[in-house]
Amino acid sequence: MARVVVDVMLKPEILDPQGQAVQRALPRLGFEGISDVRQGKRFELEVDGPVDEAALARIRDLAESFLANTVIEDFTVKVEEGAEVAEAAK
Amino acid sequence: MARVVVDVMLKPEILDPQGQAVQRALPRLGFEGISDVRQGKRFELEVDGPVDEAALARIRDLAESFLANTVIEDFTVKVEEGAEVAEAAK
Repeated sequence: MARVVVDVMLKPEILDPQGQAVQRALPRLGFEGISDVRQGKRFELEVDGPVDEAALARIRDLAESFLANTVIEDFTVKVEEGAEVAEAAK
Repeated sequence: MARVVVDVMLKPEILDPQGQAVQRALPRLGFEGISDVRQGKRFELEVDGPVDEAALARIRDLAESFLANTVIEDFTVKVEEGAEVAEAAK
């Protein structure tokens, strides 16, 4: 079983009030030197069977149709290598 | 300027109704073979200056205190290499 991660972020030209709220709060909270914050969504999909090009194409299709609103959002699809190891080590 | 990404996901033992709703909708929408979906948050922070160990330690502190609720959420902090290039190529 492999894990595929779909990250969905607002396009750079779209205003991100959630990210801005975080960014504006940071100096008050004692964190300086962070000039911008954007907040988006991360989907972790557990895929049965091999993640070959065909499976990735289907997931890209799925991300484009249902996970992201491509009018205002960009998405990236990537296969997470060694996900189990990384999680266990945290 | 470097980009640091903070991913915040519900802990594996915490129920994720958003992810479950997506997962249950997939077969209806014609996507089979995805056994689990978890939905979380992704923060992209633009950091002024070099991202050294001290800066990363501060961002970890910030993520732990403000971006994640560590009672129910795990987070990971990573530096995104060549972010500008990756974005432009999309």
